[in-house]
Amino acid sequence: MNAERRTPVTVLGLGNMGAALAAAFLERGHATTVWNRTAHKAEAAAARGARVAATPEEAVAASDLVVACVLDYDALHEVVDPVVATLAGRTLVNLTTGSPEQAREFAAWAAERGIAYLDGAVMTTPPGVGNPEMMFLYSGAREAFDARTSALETLGDPLYLGEDAGLASLYDVALLGLMWASFGGWLHGTALVGADGAKAVDFGQLAVRWLGGAVSGFITRYAAQVDDGRYPGDDATVDVQITAIGHLIHAAADRGVDSALPELLKAAMERASAAGHGADSFASVIEVLRKR
Amino acid sequence: MNAERRTPVTVLGLGNMGAALAAAFLERGHATTVWNRTAHKAEAAAARGARVAATPEEAVAASDLVVACVLDYDALHEVVDPVVATLAGRTLVNLTTGSPEQAREFAAWAAERGIAYLDGAVMTTPPGVGNPEMMFLYSGAREAFDARTSALETLGDPLYLGEDAGLASLYDVALLGLMWASFGGWLHGTALVGADGAKAVDFGQLAVRWLGGAVSGFITRYAAQVDDGRYPGDDATVDVQITAIGHLIHAAADRGVDSALPELLKAAMERASAAGHGADSFASVIEVLRKR
Ligand SMILES: NC(=O)c1ccc[n+]([C@@H]2O[C@H](COP(=O)([O-])OP(=O)(O)OC[C@H]3O[C@@H](n4cnc5c(N)ncnc54)[C@H](OP(=O)(O)O)[C@@H]3O)[C@@H](O)[C@H]2O)c1
Ligand SMILES: NC(=O)c1ccc[n+]([C@@H]2O[C@H](COP(=O)([O-])OP(=O)(O)OC[C@H]3O[C@@H](n4cnc5c(N)ncnc54)[C@H](OP(=O)(O)O)[C@@H]3O)[C@@H](O)[C@H]2O)c1
Repeated sequence: MNAERRTPVTVLGLGNMGAALAAAFLERGHATTVWNRTAHKAEAAAARGARVAATPEEAVAASDLVVACVLDYDALHEVVDPVVATLAGRTLVNLTTGSPEQAREFAAWAAERGIAYLDGAVMTTPPGVGNPEMMFLYSGAREAFDARTSALETLGDPLYLGEDAGLASLYDVALLGLMWASFGGWLHGTALVGADGAKAVDFGQLAVRWLGGAVSGFITRYAAQVDDGRYPGDDATVDVQITAIGHLIHAAADRGVDSALPELLKAAMERASAAGHGADSFASVIEVLRKR
Repeated sequence: MNAERRTPVTVLGLGNMGAALAAAFLERGHATTVWNRTAHKAEAAAARGARVAATPEEAVAASDLVVACVLDYDALHEVVDPVVATLAGRTLVNLTTGSPEQAREFAAWAAERGIAYLDGAVMTTPPGVGNPEMMFLYSGAREAFDARTSALETLGDPLYLGEDAGLASLYDVALLGLMWASFGGWLHGTALVGADGAKAVDFGQLAVRWLGGAVSGFITRYAAQVDDGRYPGDDATVDVQITAIGHLIHAAADRGVDSALPELLKAAMERASAAGHGADSFASVIEVLRKR
C-alpha cells in the first residue's frame, strides 16, 4: 500500500464506530485527520498516526473527503453547521444512523450549500470495519460515490443504492428487521431443541447452514415472484405451511416455549390464505403486509 | 457409478416427495423397488428402471433398506402394520413428517418388532432431492445410520442427530420456524423498501448476503452465549436495539406496512430488558421465551 496515493480523509466523531473507521483508514495508509468533541478519545488514533484537529473547522479544512459518524442528526448538525462554508466543494459521507427522511432533508440542505453528499449505513459492528466482506450501503450523489469508491473500500464493501439519499437508511432498517426476525426464529428454535437437551451451538450450526442454503434459495426465488406479483405455489403452498407451523406451535407449547412469534406468522399466513393465496407460495404473504 | 455395488432399496409412497426419492436412487444406480397405494403413480419410476411391487409385502421383501414417505403416521401404519413380520431384521427409514412424539412412539413400536428404525426429515422440496448440499436429518438407531450412510448420501447430506428418534422432527420444525421468521422479516423489509420504489430482487440479493454473512456470524457467536447462559452485550445491546427497532416500526408505519412482526420482536426485547438484560446481547431474549 502506497500511502502517497491514498486519499487524505477526515473523520468527525470518534465514538465506538468513528474510532473503528479512523483506525481502518490509518491501517490502510490514508493520511487521516480526526476530531472528536471529547478530545481525549482522539488519543488512540493519534498513536496510530492520525493528525488531531483542535476544531471541526481545522478538521474539515484538512481533507476533501470528510466522513462523519456521530450519535444522531442533531449532533451532526451541531458539528457541521458552523463549518458549512469550509465544507462547500468537498464530499461529506455521513455514516450516522437516522431515518430516510432525515437523510433526504440533510441531502437537500447539503446540496443547497454546494456539498457533495453521500448518506451511508454501516452493516457491521466496529470490529467488522475494514473487513472487505462487510456491507456498507451508500445513497445520494452518484458522482461522489464513483469518485470515492476506492477510499470507501478501505472500510468494507461499498454498495451504491441510488441517487435518493434516503435509500441507505431505508435498506439499513429493512435489513436490521430481517436480522431481528431471524434472531427471533433462531432463538425460538434454540429454546425448542434445548428443551429436549440439544446444545445451542449444535442447532446454531445447522441454523447457519439452513439460512445460507435452502432459506436463501427460497428468498431468491420468491423475490422474483414479488416483483412479478405472481406467487406460484409449486414448491410449498401457504395452506400446507399453515398446517406445518401448527406442529411447531404444538411442539413449543408442549415444551413451555413462548410461541407468540410463530402464532403471529401463522396468522399472517391465514390472512393470505383467506385473501385467496392458499395455493400460492409464502411470498404471497407480502400482499397482506402492505396495508394500502 | 457401479450399479452392482449400490445397496438395493425399496421406496414406499410415491407422492411428490417419494417420487423424488425414488428418482434419486434410480439416478445413482440403486436397484430400486417401489410401491404406491395408487398404482399409476409408479409409472414414472418404472420408466426409469424401478421394479414396481404389487403389494407392500412384495416391496418390503425386495430390499434390506426400506424408505417410507407417505402423508402422515396414520398412513404409515396402514402401510407397514400388515408387513411387520417381513420388516423384522430390515432397516426402515421413515421420511414422513410428524411430531417428535410420533417419531418416538414409532421407534419404540419398531424396536419391539426387531426393525432397525431411523426417523428422518427432508430439509428441501422435491427438486432439491439428490443435491448433496441439501440437509437430511436423521435420528434413531445409530448402527442403522452408520451402515446406511452411503445409500442415504444419494438423497442429500445425511446428518445424524442422536439416538432419540424424536430429534430429527424436532430440529425439522425448529428450522422451519427459523425459515418462516426469516421469510416474515424479509417480506416486511421487501414491502418497506418497495414502498420507496426498490425492486424485491435487489433487496433480496442484499438480504441473502446479509443472512449468510453478518447475521450468521452473530448467530454463531450468540449460540455459544446461550450455552454459557451469559450474554455479554459488547457488540450491540438489547437497549440500543430497542431504539433501533423503533425506527423500523416508524418507517413502516409511514409507508403503510403492517408492523405486527417488529412490534412483537420489540416487545420481546423490552421484556428481556425489564428482566435485567438491557445491557446484554440479543441472545439474552431467549430467557423470556422459555416460559418455565
Ligand atoms: N456501534 C455500532 O455497532 C454501530 C453500527 C452501525 C451504525 N452505528 C451508528 O454510528 C453512530 C455512532 O455510533 P457509536 O457506536 O460510535 O456511538 P458512541 O460510541 O456512543 O459515540 C457517539 C459519538 O457521537 C459524538 N456526539 C454525540 N453528541 C454529540 C454532539 N452534540 N456534538 C458532537 N459530537 C457528539 C460523541 O462524542 P463524545 O465522545 O464527545 O461524546 C461520539 O463521538 C450512531 O449513529 C450509530 O447508530 C453504530
Ligand atoms: N413435498 C415437500 O416439499 C416435502 C418436504 C419435506 C417433507 N415432506 C413430507 O413428505 C411426506 C409426503 O409428502 P408429499 O409431498 O409426497 O405428499 P403427497 O404428494 O400428497 O403424497 C402423499 C403420499 O402419501 C400416500 N398416502 C396417503 N395416505 C395413504 C394411506 N392411507 N395409505 C397409503 N398411502 C397413503 C399417497 O398415496 P396416494 O398416491 O395413493 O394418494 C402419496 O404417495 C409428508 O409427510 C410431507 O410432510 C414433503
